[in-house]
Amino acid sequence: MKINKYEDISQIEREAKRDYIDRHSAFVSTVGDIKKGEKSIVKIKVGDEYQHPSENDHFISYVQLWEGENMIAQANFSAATMGNAASQVEVDFYIVPAKDTLKLTATAYCTKHGLWQSDELVVEVQQ
Amino acid sequence: MKINKYEDISQIEREAKRDYIDRHSAFVSTVGDIKKGEKSIVKIKVGDEYQHPSENDHFISYVQLWEGENMIAQANFSAATMGNAASQVEVDFYIVPAKDTLKLTATAYCTKHGLWQSDELVVEVQQ
Amino acid sequence: MKINKYEDISQIEREAKRDYIDRHSAFVSTVGDIKKGEKSIVKIKVGDEYQHPSENDHFISYVQLWEGENMIAQANFSAATMGNAASQVEVDFYIVPAKDTLKLTATAYCTKHGLWQSDELVVEVQQ
Amino acid sequence: MKINKYEDISQIEREAKRDYIDRHSAFVSTVGDIKKGEKSIVKIKVGDEYQHPSENDHFISYVQLWEGENMIAQANFSAATMGNAASQVEVDFYIVPAKDTLKLTATAYCTKHGLWQSDELVVEVQQ
Repeated sequence: MKINKYEDISQIEREAKRDYIDRHSAFVSTVGDIKKGEKSIVKIKVGDEYQHPSENDHFISYVQLWEGENMIAQANFSAATMGNAASQVEVDFYIVPAKDTLKLTATAYCTKHGLWQSDELVVEVQQ
Repeated sequence: MKINKYEDISQIEREAKRDYIDRHSAFVSTVGDIKKGEKSIVKIKVGDEYQHPSENDHFISYVQLWEGENMIAQANFSAATMGNAASQVEVDFYIVPAKDTLKLTATAYCTKHGLWQSDELVVEVQQ
Repeated sequence: MKINKYEDISQIEREAKRDYIDRHSAFVSTVGDIKKGEKSIVKIKVGDEYQHPSENDHFISYVQLWEGENMIAQANFSAATMGNAASQVEVDFYIVPAKDTLKLTATAYCTKHGLWQSDELVVEVQQ
Repeated sequence: MKINKYEDISQIEREAKRDYIDRHSAFVSTVGDIKKGEKSIVKIKVGDEYQHPSENDHFISYVQLWEGENMIAQANFSAATMGNAASQVEVDFYIVPAKDTLKLTATAYCTKHGLWQSDELVVEVQQ
């Protein structure tokens, strides 16, 4: 088992490879304010410009949200979550930050093409 | 193992019981339009007027989203998700409806007080 | 969402119904000694006389082991776990009993036919 | 997020480091025959010579079984699975091999010390 890392697709020539990498890549972002001790939203999305299939033998079956070495939330999906349609899997987690800085990474698992890890997003938490 | 069902707390006299039932109850709702074949948002929230602890020996460790007899998504949490603070666990799932009517229920599992099931929410999907 | 309960198939006349109920039913049993404070084995098996499909659109995707109202372990599977062959899903959990009596139930989730719950197995733990 | 890899503890001088590495390491092994198309047992165990705590704020919360790039089974635990006692987390998965060669790896997640990956075990499947 290995972890596939995010690659900047603007640096990739071949269209098929750009599509392959983009649609498997997990992206982690914040929505609105991230405040210490208050409920704050972290979004995980799989794929940015391209869509991943949601077929019974080929779909994104889970994403995980990590803060440093700690997994703080996980969402499991089935092909039916996406209506068996190609799409970009997405989930919004509501977390309560307890630290001054969050080091967030997301992972996504494709049932055919294995485990993918996002770049780390460093978030300065508002006091 | 049994499933605890939602009870309307306005019908409950004793404050401690209202708190106990409300903070464990899962609520399922839609956010914005629910359109056939398009990404649509379903929110699960645990607790409405009251907050549930998020302590290492007592927290909401997962919620599930069901459509009829099929589980379409699950989110797992740790006490750290909520910063070990009392709160109302919350997650937004993005689903793509493939049917004309969705029969949504949510379940929530408390590590001390077991499994809880929401009322069913019937959603007429826009075409 | 509802929980389907175990039914004694010897009391069921129609062969198709016996097959349907048996292959979805979760069975919980102990293997060897169950000793307080020592690692002890609890088996969950889905189906007894009949086999359940393991196809990408129809398989047993998880089983849970409950002690009273507390979920103490869960195993998730894919159709590939069973090599996409009809079989009886099975897993052995190693637990360390901390109580004098265990009240064990198992649940099994079929991606087509929903959630099933075993009878409760009461185990007197050896001291 | 990073994956900690197995290290041969016989090559490590410092006792505390040997303990730290051993008790977090996932080990994957087979039990009995591994036959094509027949139910076969794969064991995952966390820790070999040393034991890991099972406390509410520090326990092994899941292990995964991978075959090449595909996750074929996962088990989730709580501190209560091990009766809150230090131990070596263990689970036996029953799989049905569909290939001639299995490339098995196990991962284990500690709620304090992150994700650990076993060495790969190559298994020639009996026909």
